[in-house]
Amino acid sequence: MRAVDLIIKKRDGGELTTDEIEFFVRGYTEGTIPDYQAAAMLMAIYLIGMSDRETRDLTLAMARSGDMLDLADVVPIAVDKHSSGGVGDKVSLVVTPLAAACGLRVAKMTGAGLGFTGGTIDKLQSIPGFRVDLSPAEFKAQLARIGMVLSGQTADLAPADRKLYALRDVTGTISSMPLIVSSIMSKKLAAGAHAILLDVKVGSGAFMKTVEEAVQLAQEMVRIGTQLGRRMRALISDMNQPLGWAVGNALEVKEAISALHEDGPEDLRDHCLVVTAEMLVLGGIAADPEQGVEMASEALRSGAAWRAFRTLVEAQGGDVRVIDNPDLLPQARLVVPLPAPCSGYLQRVDAAEVGLAVVDLGGGREKKGDPIDHAVGVITHYKVGDQVQVGTPLVTVHANDEGRLALARERLLAAHVIGAEPVPPLPLFYRKI
Amino acid sequence: MRAVDLIIKKRDGGELTTDEIEFFVRGYTEGTIPDYQAAAMLMAIYLIGMSDRETRDLTLAMARSGDMLDLADVVPIAVDKHSSGGVGDKVSLVVTPLAAACGLRVAKMTGAGLGFTGGTIDKLQSIPGFRVDLSPAEFKAQLARIGMVLSGQTADLAPADRKLYALRDVTGTISSMPLIVSSIMSKKLAAGAHAILLDVKVGSGAFMKTVEEAVQLAQEMVRIGTQLGRRMRALISDMNQPLGWAVGNALEVKEAISALHEDGPEDLRDHCLVVTAEMLVLGGIAADPEQGVEMASEALRSGAAWRAFRTLVEAQGGDVRVIDNPDLLPQARLVVPLPAPCSGYLQRVDAAEVGLAVVDLGGGREKKGDPIDHAVGVITHYKVGDQVQVGTPLVTVHANDEGRLALARERLLAAHVIGAEPVPPLPLFYRKI
Repeated sequence: MRAVDLIIKKRDGGELTTDEIEFFVRGYTEGTIPDYQAAAMLMAIYLIGMSDRETRDLTLAMARSGDMLDLADVVPIAVDKHSSGGVGDKVSLVVTPLAAACGLRVAKMTGAGLGFTGGTIDKLQSIPGFRVDLSPAEFKAQLARIGMVLSGQTADLAPADRKLYALRDVTGTISSMPLIVSSIMSKKLAAGAHAILLDVKVGSGAFMKTVEEAVQLAQEMVRIGTQLGRRMRALISDMNQPLGWAVGNALEVKEAISALHEDGPEDLRDHCLVVTAEMLVLGGIAADPEQGVEMASEALRSGAAWRAFRTLVEAQGGDVRVIDNPDLLPQARLVVPLPAPCSGYLQRVDAAEVGLAVVDLGGGREKKGDPIDHAVGVITHYKVGDQVQVGTPLVTVHANDEGRLALARERLLAAHVIGAEPVPPLPLFYRKI
Repeated sequence: MRAVDLIIKKRDGGELTTDEIEFFVRGYTEGTIPDYQAAAMLMAIYLIGMSDRETRDLTLAMARSGDMLDLADVVPIAVDKHSSGGVGDKVSLVVTPLAAACGLRVAKMTGAGLGFTGGTIDKLQSIPGFRVDLSPAEFKAQLARIGMVLSGQTADLAPADRKLYALRDVTGTISSMPLIVSSIMSKKLAAGAHAILLDVKVGSGAFMKTVEEAVQLAQEMVRIGTQLGRRMRALISDMNQPLGWAVGNALEVKEAISALHEDGPEDLRDHCLVVTAEMLVLGGIAADPEQGVEMASEALRSGAAWRAFRTLVEAQGGDVRVIDNPDLLPQARLVVPLPAPCSGYLQRVDAAEVGLAVVDLGGGREKKGDPIDHAVGVITHYKVGDQVQVGTPLVTVHANDEGRLALARERLLAAHVIGAEPVPPLPLFYRKI
């Protein structure tokens, strides 16, 4: 089998066999197929597409390119949650302990932020000592012991995806349905979860800009996952404005802690209850989403969710004194409110621009490996549809550098559109699949 | 400007600007744009295509990626001839001195063989001492002195094409019209000819398999060349069987010498007269093709063409005793006739397979840089439509190795189809553009 013949086959509209896909993925992972042949193949896949069967085979081949975590010997059903990435999305921090407090086993591998989207790993690292680099053995042991784990992707899971994703990023082949689906699902399969809840974001702060695109992606992932024996559910949720008020690592941890104390933003609370309920249903803990919401609400009210978060932080080496007293989290030197330039109704927010303002401040990264400042970020004060009074704070910026602050200020003001006409508030969810 | 943005633009069906194409070609040639980004761009061009203007800009950018030979200070009109590659195509060996004997200045850069197609350079190197590595200065000096030159591509001409061609070969992006056109025409432009005759081959021993494809390629090249100020003409010629009888380097030189003595195969003679006549018209030496054929016939008859060949060989350091006595050319150890397995009419020949039989014998190369044996090859004895008598030699193999001979024998017998029905002979040419 020769790589160039497989490229030509796909280029000419052919369907690659299971063996051919396996050969290509293995060859690329091992380095016998060079970057330039993989790049040509990726562009051919981008422009020609892949059948359902090819996407499934690609997903499996990528999942098998490294270690496959088997969680069946530890827990009967391990549930994972995947967000397609957004701005102010601290849901994993709340939902992991919340679902665990309801009796679910939650095994979540999570990522670092890139571009306008924040990453759960970066947020967790605001807590001194919190380890996100558990080995597969530590991951399983903790899941068995306390029923929850929230860690970064270990180095040996789906190495094909890591290599292919980096190549897609520089060859204009990111936004391809079979490549997105196989990238996400291969990591989820390798991470060993038996049931997966997908939180597919749509809007100005998400990769998917229309509900139709998001639905298509969700349906593809649910189909592939189901065909591969996983219990799957997907929510299509709004990302036309940041979720909650806080955007920025330590600020979001603080907000998540508030939410676990039933003292956080309403949209964040409602979003987390729905996500948790669906996870409880997937895991067989709740009979239906309504019961799931009731159970989760009770776990918040009783303090069980908060105690579970404390247990999680302690288990992964984090300093619990800091979460008990969130003022000990990293604090920015400059806290500057930006006054609203006029009165009216908040018409819309460019959430990606809010995310990029945090990158401007040093709280995100433009490329992999950039260091980040956990203290900086933005607190927003209005939701779309809210009435805004001129001169009152529109957002409050937490910065450590005047120059960066100036950059972010401009971007933040441009990202908020205020107008005279009243507009309805945005929904939290659009669809369930 | 970022390479990935240009890839995305082309991927999405956009038209690249002149500056963008220049940026990409220069970046790739200089190494600031890596192979994998060029590979993705090539596949996007393959599948999306290029406008006429883009193809022209790509051709120019590639031509300008290295030295541009200027022949205007040496001769008023330098004429080049380009063949798209075939089997038994020794036309350049005959036509260069033949056209020069008629008073035309012929500046021809030529290539080495690859796969089933032979290369003029390899054929010339059958003549001991013949230099095919003239520097640009030597190339121009010889053109000025004797009015003809037949040399390999110097290292500094169109380096972008050399790099891109190697990449296309391994990424499944060879057979793309804008990429083929720009590859051929960039080298021709850099080589400095003012007028170019294209001999586009079609058939079982050519890259183009149908007359329609060949016509399309020829029209594209003529259009691009004309737009860039060159006088252009294209012939669509048959390559459904080897041209002449001989296939193999020294055997073809011997046949070309016979042709220059008016003692060669009829099809080769007629082909060379037509090609020469068109070149004479392009160069302003003949008023029309009919006059051109007359002039060329006279140059053959008078011995002027043969004397010009001797002058050429001597000028480029070749041993003229060898061409005066072609039995001194490299000779194979084993000369084995393959008898026809049955009587009938020769229905068709797979000319590419005949070319590959010569590669089997060691007379061609599978990949760049492979050494070749100049002595080996094949003499065919029948043309399509000829009546074949069982047991008489169908082809005669010249080999230096029994194992290789066995391989070639099988391939050659399979390449000739003999049947009971009479079939008409093949034409030499299909179209003129």
